[in-house]
Amino acid sequence: MRDKALKMHKENKGKLEVASKVALKDADDLSLAYSPGVAEPCTEIHKDKSTAYDYTAKGNLVAVVSDGTAVLGLGDIGPEASMPVMEGKAVLFKSFSGVDGFPICVDTTDPDKIVELVRAIQPTFGGVNLEDIAAPACFEIERRLKEICDIPIFHDDQHGTAIVTVAGLINALKLVDKKAKDIKVVVNGAGASAISVTKLVMKLGAKNIIMCDRQGSIYEGRQEAMNKYKEEIARTTNPKNEKVTLEEAMVDADLFIGLSAGNVVSEKMVFKMAKDPIVFAMANPTPEIDPALAKKAGARVIGTGRSDYPNQVNNVLAFPGIFRGALDTRATDINEEMKIAAAEGIAQLIDREELTEEYVIPNPFDPRVAPMVAKKVAQAAMDTGVATIKVNPDDVEQKTKTLATIK
Amino acid sequence: MRDKALKMHKENKGKLEVASKVALKDADDLSLAYSPGVAEPCTEIHKDKSTAYDYTAKGNLVAVVSDGTAVLGLGDIGPEASMPVMEGKAVLFKSFSGVDGFPICVDTTDPDKIVELVRAIQPTFGGVNLEDIAAPACFEIERRLKEICDIPIFHDDQHGTAIVTVAGLINALKLVDKKAKDIKVVVNGAGASAISVTKLVMKLGAKNIIMCDRQGSIYEGRQEAMNKYKEEIARTTNPKNEKVTLEEAMVDADLFIGLSAGNVVSEKMVFKMAKDPIVFAMANPTPEIDPALAKKAGARVIGTGRSDYPNQVNNVLAFPGIFRGALDTRATDINEEMKIAAAEGIAQLIDREELTEEYVIPNPFDPRVAPMVAKKVAQAAMDTGVATIKVNPDDVEQKTKTLATIK
Repeated sequence: MRDKALKMHKENKGKLEVASKVALKDADDLSLAYSPGVAEPCTEIHKDKSTAYDYTAKGNLVAVVSDGTAVLGLGDIGPEASMPVMEGKAVLFKSFSGVDGFPICVDTTDPDKIVELVRAIQPTFGGVNLEDIAAPACFEIERRLKEICDIPIFHDDQHGTAIVTVAGLINALKLVDKKAKDIKVVVNGAGASAISVTKLVMKLGAKNIIMCDRQGSIYEGRQEAMNKYKEEIARTTNPKNEKVTLEEAMVDADLFIGLSAGNVVSEKMVFKMAKDPIVFAMANPTPEIDPALAKKAGARVIGTGRSDYPNQVNNVLAFPGIFRGALDTRATDINEEMKIAAAEGIAQLIDREELTEEYVIPNPFDPRVAPMVAKKVAQAAMDTGVATIKVNPDDVEQKTKTLATIK
Repeated sequence: MRDKALKMHKENKGKLEVASKVALKDADDLSLAYSPGVAEPCTEIHKDKSTAYDYTAKGNLVAVVSDGTAVLGLGDIGPEASMPVMEGKAVLFKSFSGVDGFPICVDTTDPDKIVELVRAIQPTFGGVNLEDIAAPACFEIERRLKEICDIPIFHDDQHGTAIVTVAGLINALKLVDKKAKDIKVVVNGAGASAISVTKLVMKLGAKNIIMCDRQGSIYEGRQEAMNKYKEEIARTTNPKNEKVTLEEAMVDADLFIGLSAGNVVSEKMVFKMAKDPIVFAMANPTPEIDPALAKKAGARVIGTGRSDYPNQVNNVLAFPGIFRGALDTRATDINEEMKIAAAEGIAQLIDREELTEEYVIPNPFDPRVAPMVAKKVAQAAMDTGVATIKVNPDDVEQKTKTLATIK
């Protein structure tokens, strides 16, 4: 794998190129694509900025922005070293939904500077995908950018994971015949993705959630290892304000969501969960509990972050369609309703008859996923008033199918 | 033209797309281009930043940065409206020399913020082409970026024009059998390109230069309408510190260079120039003097900025090859020697026997130009110590030929 991956990157000198959509063969072509003809679209956009979506690539361009502080499992490797991941992300955007992603790897970790930089490059882009930025900076950067930007801002590490987890959860709940509002949920880990997953599971209807970190449950009034994001979690989850260990929290839980570290959950802990427990053990590369052990301990539905087990929670199921739907409605935001719509779109691709313990999440290469997500997200953008143009969601679905090279 | 240009931009939704250089069809491809395989090049770059040139697209990527304050003849139309020009520029980069240009249109005109932004996005790019930024901000931005950046910074409006003008001058001087060191030069206009042209003409050997603006000649001690850039010009040109009008300055001049406004030069003024005068009247769309009138008044060689006259001073003759040569040597700068080498490369493509009054500058679509410029620039980068790798200049020429779609 190592040699093959290095060879592939070296032979191609990375994975992206910038291509021209117009022919340039002679002086006539030049006078249309460049001076003097180019003055015409410039003048139109100067008169009405919104026509930038008609005359430029803006409406299909997404900046993939990283400071390289939390790259894959590698951690803080810096912006230069994050570039292969950001190029890879752009390749996925293009292959799954025809979105033109472009890496912007920034040589600063100062949230003020990142916010100002992203704000300033908005004219070029139709959306911004924040990527592999460490918590808690990622929260502040995203929150502030959402406030000041006219284009949608989306931190994929948080929300991509949340959307696909909730998609799997929707289907798992059908299998075990439970409702979100009735279940007890334990989330282990309190990083960026764990917090976003928790919020989206609440948006789905769950009310009884306990989030744990290395210190145990997060509750109001806890003193150790808190920050303002955990304090918000403490206020909105853990309704009985329980001060418990992870093991204690998991007793009678219907759903375990792990975004923490390998092997922190034992068979015994799964065994003590409620009937038909659902376990999403998404630590990478080693899950919180080995899926075989979880199964032995009674877990009914098991998901992981790995491609070699069933029900892989893979962000690629979400972000290509999310941005397709957001761009095609010229949405100013990607809100919670759009995320839930995306999750429902992913979930409903598996019919009730097809649904099994080993198939609650579609395959990452299922070509129906991005078009369906794009359609659902476009509809939700219009329904919630963040779309600035009206489109036919079926057209968005069809367009995504046409543009995707994954067929 | 208007309808055709708008239609072309609208049908294609701009002119650029981001394309993948690698196939992505199945899970194996995904595991190489993205997780987990992508961790390998990330780790290599983390160990040694210079390998970013091997494993990422950096080494072929040039940011085309504009704040939209001085776009074509349109002026300060803002970053959104500048996007079609920046996309056009990227199309030219790709078509002429295979460079991947990418527009970064910035929503700020504060030089401090532009400098910080460009500095911060360096990890993604192998070079930066500043474009259509108004003077005097463009000088400060370029100067500061050249100091702090490891990658080459090039303000094309200044230096592209200068290089092609000097290329034309080299050939014109052969025709009239004069030497740069002996000629009297008058430059009209004191904007960004005029100052850069003046400096490069001096680098070519000219010593007797007078620059004029609307107030007449620029001289040491002048009080009206000065700035620090004009003060530097006053110190380094106008050796006799003449306080004259443009008309007076042009008496006995061998070369007139206009980067000012239409119709500011009369037949009489050209008539009073030295024997075999050379006139580069580059104001657009109306030259400083109509070429037919200049000819009637005795001008021997005439160049303009327009494609419908002979000897068009078109930047596209310079920047695609300049960046190809700078990128392929991983140059840390584009210095004066590289600019002169580029000018000489352009000039020498016209043999002495082919050289006529109407053919001192090659056609913009001459496919030999970018490869020759790239070769010359690569050689000069190595000769002056700004190259960080050694290459065979002939290989650079050959590569440019292969990559260019203009054949």
